[in-house]
Amino acid sequence: MLLCDIGNTSYHFLKEELHFKESVTQFDPVTIKEQVFYICVNPKIKNVLKDLPNWIDLCEYLDMAKYYETMGVDRIVASEAVEDGIIIDAGSAVTVDIVKKSVFEGGFIYPGIKAMNQTYKNISSALDYSFNFECDLDIMPKNSQDAISYGYLKTLYSEVMSHNMDIILTGGDAKEFAKIFPDAKIDESLIFKGMKKIMKKADLC
Amino acid sequence: MLLCDIGNTSYHFLKEELHFKESVTQFDPVTIKEQVFYICVNPKIKNVLKDLPNWIDLCEYLDMAKYYETMGVDRIVASEAVEDGIIIDAGSAVTVDIVKKSVFEGGFIYPGIKAMNQTYKNISSALDYSFNFECDLDIMPKNSQDAISYGYLKTLYSEVMSHNMDIILTGGDAKEFAKIFPDAKIDESLIFKGMKKIMKKADLC
Repeated sequence: MLLCDIGNTSYHFLKEELHFKESVTQFDPVTIKEQVFYICVNPKIKNVLKDLPNWIDLCEYLDMAKYYETMGVDRIVASEAVEDGIIIDAGSAVTVDIVKKSVFEGGFIYPGIKAMNQTYKNISSALDYSFNFECDLDIMPKNSQDAISYGYLKTLYSEVMSHNMDIILTGGDAKEFAKIFPDAKIDESLIFKGMKKIMKKADLC
Repeated sequence: MLLCDIGNTSYHFLKEELHFKESVTQFDPVTIKEQVFYICVNPKIKNVLKDLPNWIDLCEYLDMAKYYETMGVDRIVASEAVEDGIIIDAGSAVTVDIVKKSVFEGGFIYPGIKAMNQTYKNISSALDYSFNFECDLDIMPKNSQDAISYGYLKTLYSEVMSHNMDIILTGGDAKEFAKIFPDAKIDESLIFKGMKKIMKKADLC
């Protein structure tokens, strides 16, 4: 049995304790013959998978009354894995969700590193820098690279910290963001924990 | 005599009390015969203007020791106009600069409305919404439009408010941002005030 979390850029698999990733553009899901329990935010791939009987979509087993209709299934599943905390899932987008006493309290969406880098570059070639995650966020910047790094990171930091909750970091860029949230707990298996919880509730494992 | 603030999208003129704008792609600066004192962040246009003797670049009259080398001249000039406050200049980019006792303390750069809208859209077609400036920033969102609006606006708000200073709003989108900074002072002539101050110091008027 496999678990799989499908995003906009990759298939993220879990087989027992082993994590591995495949590219959304190159991987063919037909090549997998065993049973796969998955969640998928990518509409094109979702459409392909619905015809493969060994790929089982966990979105059918969610208690949607606790969430909102257009909310990404990855955010829902991560929220299911947490009792109390603010979850930062740093991927193509950075989603920030609050859970209190196992109840989803709402959340917001912020651009991921790559998307935001492109944004600054598109505004002006003078802003074409990579982000400096070592930038001192206690000091107002006096150079261009730190001015965009602070603009991207400190704004997010100020908002997240204002909630005064335990922070759980997950997603492909969790380690980068851990540099600005040093007290956060990194949990790269958060989505898989949520998936297992949903499968247990639904008697699927 | 004319004053002109040239950005990435438009020429913003001041003639006595009258403001008017011309598009960067369509306006030909040669058509103006009178003396124009200008600042320009657009390298292509800067290159054209240097050959026009009636267009006088104010960047040569700035005290650059107070700022940093790659800082946009529009930010410098706006900072010159303020004694104490946090300046939000909302255009293609949103620049946020702090001035205390007429000394520039640093600043950061955040994407403007159009650029950030495009960013969310590029991440996923599911995030292709315009921003809701009426969104209640005291409540964690439970719908997609508010989730990106909060992500764009509340993060900026939390950071700006953490400085606990008077807020001065300027730039083409000042009125939109005034909805989330209701106590801010809108000053659409801030750059021109800074330009006049520099001209006075340099005995140009």
